[in-house]
Amino acid sequence: MASSTRSITITKYSTGESSSQEDALSVEEPLEIGVRFGLNLEPKNLSVTMRTPGHDEELALGFLLTEGIISSYEQVIGTVQDEENRITVILHEEVPFDPKQFERHIYTTSSCGICAKSSIEAVRVQGTLPHAPQNWSVEASTLYPLPSLLRERQADFESTGGLHAAALFSQTGEFLYLREDVGRHNALDKLIGHALQTERYPLQTQILLLSGRASFELIQKATLAGLSFVAAVGAPSTLAVELAREMNITLVGFLRNERFNVYTGEERVKG
Amino acid sequence: MASSTRSITITKYSTGESSSQEDALSVEEPLEIGVRFGLNLEPKNLSVTMRTPGHDEELALGFLLTEGIISSYEQVIGTVQDEENRITVILHEEVPFDPKQFERHIYTTSSCGICAKSSIEAVRVQGTLPHAPQNWSVEASTLYPLPSLLRERQADFESTGGLHAAALFSQTGEFLYLREDVGRHNALDKLIGHALQTERYPLQTQILLLSGRASFELIQKATLAGLSFVAAVGAPSTLAVELAREMNITLVGFLRNERFNVYTGEERVKG
Repeated sequence: MASSTRSITITKYSTGESSSQEDALSVEEPLEIGVRFGLNLEPKNLSVTMRTPGHDEELALGFLLTEGIISSYEQVIGTVQDEENRITVILHEEVPFDPKQFERHIYTTSSCGICAKSSIEAVRVQGTLPHAPQNWSVEASTLYPLPSLLRERQADFESTGGLHAAALFSQTGEFLYLREDVGRHNALDKLIGHALQTERYPLQTQILLLSGRASFELIQKATLAGLSFVAAVGAPSTLAVELAREMNITLVGFLRNERFNVYTGEERVKG
Repeated sequence: MASSTRSITITKYSTGESSSQEDALSVEEPLEIGVRFGLNLEPKNLSVTMRTPGHDEELALGFLLTEGIISSYEQVIGTVQDEENRITVILHEEVPFDPKQFERHIYTTSSCGICAKSSIEAVRVQGTLPHAPQNWSVEASTLYPLPSLLRERQADFESTGGLHAAALFSQTGEFLYLREDVGRHNALDKLIGHALQTERYPLQTQILLLSGRASFELIQKATLAGLSFVAAVGAPSTLAVELAREMNITLVGFLRNERFNVYTGEERVKG
């Protein structure tokens, strides 16, 4: 597998002194993601994302799922990575796909022009999944230790300081798996792609932990993966909170140092 | 002007205790950016970005500059924001524009398929500007205080914890101006748009400070704005360092607590 870190020589300055040292950096390279319907049709390029190499197949599958192009692993025939930085997902010919809809999905459903409401509506149109059972909830004491559990396993972040992570935990706080990437959306797509491949999907009774902030885009991806509970070490945005509320997702932010805030979906947190 | 923060009621948990409180969030809303060539032609949509409202005109102008669509403020006739979340930049009819080139700019210049080299080459094709004079340099002691100067002025970050910032400083460390946004690329586009509008552009003898990490995309934007010196509070990626090296930009990372690393362009740092 491609390495996610690379070493270069840098000049380190510290309170006036400088010295030459080796330093590990997070690798960032473009990945072109394409789809192909059946074996005889031309591939169609969907996106070029700047990602950390590794888990590219998961990234492509997660991307297709969280963009609403696929909804199950059965729709996938296979993937072809004919070059290091190009991957094509082969789908069954019957999978419906509207390129115009894909390119404009943020505002095609708009009734107000372009606004917060239309962005949320567009996610709803992409598809929603069953939620956690009605009385499913997480203990506050389960949440506090999650960031340290994440950090312990985030090996590459330790060496580079440059990778975002997304991790899944069970309802009782048991670590399941994580993925890292220079792009926070890629880390989440890889995690979701892994869940899809290993048939642990959908994720409505698991806890998603994000190492940074919670933006609209990340809650959009969480929605398409069927998550009911998202916790972030950083701050959420207004639109992330609005989308989570509309989609009945519990959103926790600033989870660190034995504290957290619940922005919406309080009924799933037990004090 | 639109507010960049909004208050909501949240539930705060701290070591077992919970209470209801007001909390400020960073606003995130979609902005559709379009261009129009002359007054009689149809507008063409270029992008929908999730941004913090405010300084939308600067954002649109900075985006057009850093995407290589415009190279000077003289090419701009004006901007029209006919809805809160839609802005169209009106350009002179003579400004050359190839939609295909714009949509595919990351890999159109590719000789190796898609790879780090082709990504860098694509930036070179978008255009490069004159650099700082040959012996222009910055004292290490000028750099140390910059993050605290940034933080002092980053009012909205203090209240929300959710905004990225990009700031410009003079060669001697004098604070010039900053912009904030939920998206780090938007903060930089706004800053560059402001420089363009106020004719302080190009920026080859100023210091750009980024509040977070330095990715390929941010160095791409810095290149198109003619910057020669970029410092980041966080880590750079491999491709950010490679692009900075190719474009002869000095790149400093982990600038905090009286320390920093120089990743490339050491000759512009005086110890």
